[in-house]
Amino acid sequence: MGEPVLREPRQERSRVTRQRLLEAAVSCLAELGWAGSTVGLVAHRAGVSRGAAQHHFPTREELFGAAVEYMAEIRSAEIRARLAQPPSAVSRTELVVDAMVQMYAGPLFRAALQLWAAASSDAALKERVVPLEVRVGRVAHRTAVELLEVDESKPGAREAVQATLDLARGLGLANLLTDDGKRRARVVREWARMLDRELAEAGTRPG
Amino acid sequence: MGEPVLREPRQERSRVTRQRLLEAAVSCLAELGWAGSTVGLVAHRAGVSRGAAQHHFPTREELFGAAVEYMAEIRSAEIRARLAQPPSAVSRTELVVDAMVQMYAGPLFRAALQLWAAASSDAALKERVVPLEVRVGRVAHRTAVELLEVDESKPGAREAVQATLDLARGLGLANLLTDDGKRRARVVREWARMLDRELAEAGTRPG
Repeated sequence: MGEPVLREPRQERSRVTRQRLLEAAVSCLAELGWAGSTVGLVAHRAGVSRGAAQHHFPTREELFGAAVEYMAEIRSAEIRARLAQPPSAVSRTELVVDAMVQMYAGPLFRAALQLWAAASSDAALKERVVPLEVRVGRVAHRTAVELLEVDESKPGAREAVQATLDLARGLGLANLLTDDGKRRARVVREWARMLDRELAEAGTRPG
Repeated sequence: MGEPVLREPRQERSRVTRQRLLEAAVSCLAELGWAGSTVGLVAHRAGVSRGAAQHHFPTREELFGAAVEYMAEIRSAEIRARLAQPPSAVSRTELVVDAMVQMYAGPLFRAALQLWAAASSDAALKERVVPLEVRVGRVAHRTAVELLEVDESKPGAREAVQATLDLARGLGLANLLTDDGKRRARVVREWARMLDRELAEAGTRPG
């Protein structure tokens, strides 16, 4: 059963506080937008003091940037875990495309969109968000390449994966104000079919 | 040379004022976001009085909604005109995909994104923006179907066109904070190649 783990109570408490702040920050940003999302409100929702929040994240920009990045890592890990034992009825490509697209249909995407929109008219925020966008984009790209089992050295393969993520972002945007689930499912099915054939024919799949 | 046109000076002045307000509204929204975009500022930029602006658009929501819709119509008309005599060196599909994608890479998309982002956390604004999104989406879809010369009754054809527009939106988002032009060109070329084959094989093209 392994060795018993000795926890540092203070360190563990700090980790939990940090995580609750990050989760509250994403849901706050997704619901209220940048203008309505203050550190005080996030601290209140997370059930911690404002001082504790500022201890973890000295600025508002750091809190919300870290929140979007953290949630992107969590969602990617969830998708990998879920697809480790995929059901066999649907094509692997469709499962992966659908999983990537779902990532952009929920609160994480809403939160990121609010941050991106605010950054586009705020130079100081933009300076922080641009490198964050690069890191989050890399996580999504790596996840897609790994799950689609693509050999990126084959011509067109890298662009086909990127197109899948650009499509996912576009579908996320179409889901922002209304539930676009039905239409999205049809678009995902068609794209998965096109992508599957492309990857098979280009010899970008191992074996 | 046709009959001389008798202009109603007042009516013509009113049309010009309206147009200047709509253009100023789009650039204002694209640059400053929803929070920074007031009717007063737009009137100032358009060189008209605040009263004149309010005569044309009684509320802020009406002004910015009308601006995004107007610019979408203008851009669609421009694309149709530009592709009426296309150069022959590039495939028709790539030209059309590129033109649609360009529509989402400029100030119109930035403005629309700011409006959508604000609407997602503002119920009153959302009520106005949802029908606007439907109308603007229809204009883009009709333009793409017409230019790609697609028969939408063929299986998958409608979804392939929709996917192209979702991709365009996603690429627009990727271009919000940084110039994504180089990567975008590669993704567009790959997408056009896949779409071209798909449309040809599905028999969705006339003749």
